[in-house]
Amino acid sequence: MNEQEHDIPEIVIIRLPLYVRTLNELKLLNQTTVSSQHLGNLLQTTPAQIRKDFSHFGKFGKQGRGYNIDYLLDELRKILNLNQKWNTCVIGIGNLGQAVINYQGFKNEGYLIKAAFDISLPSRLDNKDIVIKTISDMKNTIKELNIKIGIVTVPAPDAQGVIDRLVESGIKAILNYTPMKPVLPKNIACINIDPVLSLQSMSYYLDK
Amino acid sequence: MNEQEHDIPEIVIIRLPLYVRTLNELKLLNQTTVSSQHLGNLLQTTPAQIRKDFSHFGKFGKQGRGYNIDYLLDELRKILNLNQKWNTCVIGIGNLGQAVINYQGFKNEGYLIKAAFDISLPSRLDNKDIVIKTISDMKNTIKELNIKIGIVTVPAPDAQGVIDRLVESGIKAILNYTPMKPVLPKNIACINIDPVLSLQSMSYYLDK
Repeated sequence: MNEQEHDIPEIVIIRLPLYVRTLNELKLLNQTTVSSQHLGNLLQTTPAQIRKDFSHFGKFGKQGRGYNIDYLLDELRKILNLNQKWNTCVIGIGNLGQAVINYQGFKNEGYLIKAAFDISLPSRLDNKDIVIKTISDMKNTIKELNIKIGIVTVPAPDAQGVIDRLVESGIKAILNYTPMKPVLPKNIACINIDPVLSLQSMSYYLDK
Repeated sequence: MNEQEHDIPEIVIIRLPLYVRTLNELKLLNQTTVSSQHLGNLLQTTPAQIRKDFSHFGKFGKQGRGYNIDYLLDELRKILNLNQKWNTCVIGIGNLGQAVINYQGFKNEGYLIKAAFDISLPSRLDNKDIVIKTISDMKNTIKELNIKIGIVTVPAPDAQGVIDRLVESGIKAILNYTPMKPVLPKNIACINIDPVLSLQSMSYYLDK
């Protein structure tokens, strides 16, 4: 299957966790199979889109039989590397960084915040589970703690510099909370958290 | 066009701001028209999906001629009510709430944070542009300041209670930063900011 996995468009990868979540919800309803038609209805996409997305990874079902939910979930979780824990770090320990550190949603899904960095060390941060260091110690700490994901919560003007250092430190995936689009080497995955897109879609409803 | 707008699936509405952003990027490249095929390539969706999404709102182009970017942008911005400013409020003035209040991305796109609420008033918050009140004053302040969107940044266990009060106060759209899915009346739009989905898609790249 590895050969097929080359050059899969990022936007397809971005949709896979939504499939995982929806399949988990169907499983909670005691469903065992699902058609691309039904999955398409739930996610409001076309069955063709779903079959096309899955076709990048091989065959997950037989024409006319629907997908086996357990099997499909298992395959998608393997593709997304969801069956293991990943060490992450936060850069920027201001209000946003502290909020991210205290966010309960990451740990439950296997994303462990192991370290946090800032230009100077904060006077207090009530979290004994993570290592707090200055940015000058970033490279060593990231290697020592086997950290693979960087979560960027510095002010926007500092973000590109911090992200360059993360890349130098060997980080391969960046979750960027700042309202800027960083310049990155092609082999680095980066997702920008963009609450504005959400507000823009909701304002549709505001004159109804 | 109003009749056609009834009951458009939320997930279609959620995709519209992505079309707006992509069309703006094409415009910056001096493009004047775009085919559903090309737009599909850029967003890695099928041309059929794009035509289906747009068909909810009427006809935006002629078969084989492509879409006029200016016209399409104008129509999408009108559909999404992006040509006006919207007043918003933040509920929860902890680390996350303060980070949201200081986020520069909202104001630039016409979403103005006019008020912030918490159970007790914070000892300090350096922002003279917004009204700071206790949650008990929420309903009156929301009406007085014509606030239409609530941004929820309280701890997860407090979120449902706060959201119920927002709904009672007449709020029609909620941006929920807490890792819980609120129970809501059908006529209230709500988007949950979920950074876990982003981490899950990026971990795909981590063993490559």
